[in-house]
Amino acid sequence: MTDSSQQLKPTIAITMGDPAGVGPEVCLHLLANADLARLCTPVVFGDAAVLRACAAKAGLPFAAPVIAAEAWAHETPREPGVLDLGLIGPGAFTPGAISATTGHASYTYVNRAIDAALAGQVAAVSTAPLNKEAMSKAGIKFPGHTEIFASRTHAARSCMMQYSEEITCSFVTVHVGYAEVPALLTPGRILDVIELTAAGLERIRRRKPRLAVCGLNPHAGEHGLFGGREEERIIIPAIEAARARGHEVEGPLPPDTAFLPWKRKATDAFICMYHDQGHIPVKALAFDSAVNTTLGLPIIRTSVDHGTALDIAWQGKARPDSLYAAVRLAVKLAAQ
Amino acid sequence: MTDSSQQLKPTIAITMGDPAGVGPEVCLHLLANADLARLCTPVVFGDAAVLRACAAKAGLPFAAPVIAAEAWAHETPREPGVLDLGLIGPGAFTPGAISATTGHASYTYVNRAIDAALAGQVAAVSTAPLNKEAMSKAGIKFPGHTEIFASRTHAARSCMMQYSEEITCSFVTVHVGYAEVPALLTPGRILDVIELTAAGLERIRRRKPRLAVCGLNPHAGEHGLFGGREEERIIIPAIEAARARGHEVEGPLPPDTAFLPWKRKATDAFICMYHDQGHIPVKALAFDSAVNTTLGLPIIRTSVDHGTALDIAWQGKARPDSLYAAVRLAVKLAAQ
Repeated sequence: MTDSSQQLKPTIAITMGDPAGVGPEVCLHLLANADLARLCTPVVFGDAAVLRACAAKAGLPFAAPVIAAEAWAHETPREPGVLDLGLIGPGAFTPGAISATTGHASYTYVNRAIDAALAGQVAAVSTAPLNKEAMSKAGIKFPGHTEIFASRTHAARSCMMQYSEEITCSFVTVHVGYAEVPALLTPGRILDVIELTAAGLERIRRRKPRLAVCGLNPHAGEHGLFGGREEERIIIPAIEAARARGHEVEGPLPPDTAFLPWKRKATDAFICMYHDQGHIPVKALAFDSAVNTTLGLPIIRTSVDHGTALDIAWQGKARPDSLYAAVRLAVKLAAQ
Repeated sequence: MTDSSQQLKPTIAITMGDPAGVGPEVCLHLLANADLARLCTPVVFGDAAVLRACAAKAGLPFAAPVIAAEAWAHETPREPGVLDLGLIGPGAFTPGAISATTGHASYTYVNRAIDAALAGQVAAVSTAPLNKEAMSKAGIKFPGHTEIFASRTHAARSCMMQYSEEITCSFVTVHVGYAEVPALLTPGRILDVIELTAAGLERIRRRKPRLAVCGLNPHAGEHGLFGGREEERIIIPAIEAARARGHEVEGPLPPDTAFLPWKRKATDAFICMYHDQGHIPVKALAFDSAVNTTLGLPIIRTSVDHGTALDIAWQGKARPDSLYAAVRLAVKLAAQ
């Protein structure tokens, strides 16, 4: 009799994130976590030499097996391990400092993980944080993971969602300047985000979700008193189109009262027009449990909800809770 | 021996708010509250006939003495009461419905309260909610209390602050459309808001406050990666000018991580660039205890932190907690 629980465990690719940030140490925590090893087989896509140096500096254990890049194609990992991409060593950069070297390496980890997911070698990808400035220094134009995954997988439509038990938000726009947002809002894009979110939440909650769409202006424009009537011109048509397709959607809600406690309880996800409209309440209310996920891709991708935290990198202070939550959500989505 | 505690109690004008909203019923609660009557003498500026009808409909008591408008100049109130301005009766409008009639009445209550404060008849004004659409229908161009008080008192500079024990935010811009915000940000205006907030918090906390200024763009622009470099061009110069004047100010902070729990604990007030940047976390975290106040005026003004809530008006469901908090803050500010 074979051990079926062993066979059913999904392999999850974990990207190591920017080597100069807190990515390596949260990956070290993950590799040593027995609870997660019962749920899945995590494989860290990164540099073993960097992990080893980080373990020594941060006072963390590192006993997981290392898989060489050449062996990966033939390997079926049975326990948490590291896929050593052999890109950089600890002498190539300074922990806590922004550099093109680490920006390039972190981008490569993500690409190799996407390759593995597209090839069916892993069931999902969970990502540790990139540093956008380091990537920019390396000449990489993507502002974040969401955009890399969308581009690599040729997704026709995708969106970022921040998921937690307390509050979940999806985003019509993400990494663009404040002033650029209004021109990027269209009924079609908002409808896409509503539909992607409805599909994602239905997979997670296993029932039809209740969605709420935020307005753009203070008080959702208060019937045209503030702003350029974006609610009437753009948001309401999207809500009506979504309802016509059978989705349970309310709004546009005044953004400031959208996230009151009783409203959060009655709402599976909020559709937010811009980055801080949703990131502010998610971080204020679920700062150590929120997970980022990219909806609409052909592969499953979840991510920590924190940055590289360069000021505390390699000091053994970073908490792995957000990476654990990201891996747990990936397992949940991969099990469907 | 005279009763000095009685003599020291400040008289606080309470405006009744839009008659069609929840203002009348929260005022009825207040008039019956013995705890607040020990701290101050609240006088509701409104219509006694409306309060009487609301009490009957909502099942609330109304036993407070009514002062006629003609008698007010000679009256020194000793107990919670109503200054009957005799503007409208309950037959002139429908509870829960927006109308020019109630918009005009609510605006007049505010103006009479400002008159009383400027004349020194009351120590402070605490306001129940206006309805901006009703005011607009009545041809009144002010979008909210803050602007009415600033105009009536000819304040050279003023700003809205939302105060609570959990989180306090001051606003560089308030009731304007999303797209109009960037053009309204100037180093001078931001410096004004920093200075007004520092002075206000020093009165409340009785020590030098620690302030944090939020950026405008996601991640505070991430050193120019997003947006129009508003942080570098406008916000940082204001912060540097404030520091040069001796204020303890940090920033510009990425707006989404500004309100994390440990950051809130270390910060007396956040300076926010636009309405929802601060209203979202205040309402999410302190929805029943936050108080609005207008800083920079020659008179003290505090306000409930909720709207007219037309959907539950006159049903006895509205909670008076926010009005109580507003009156308590007014008493605190008036005692200095």
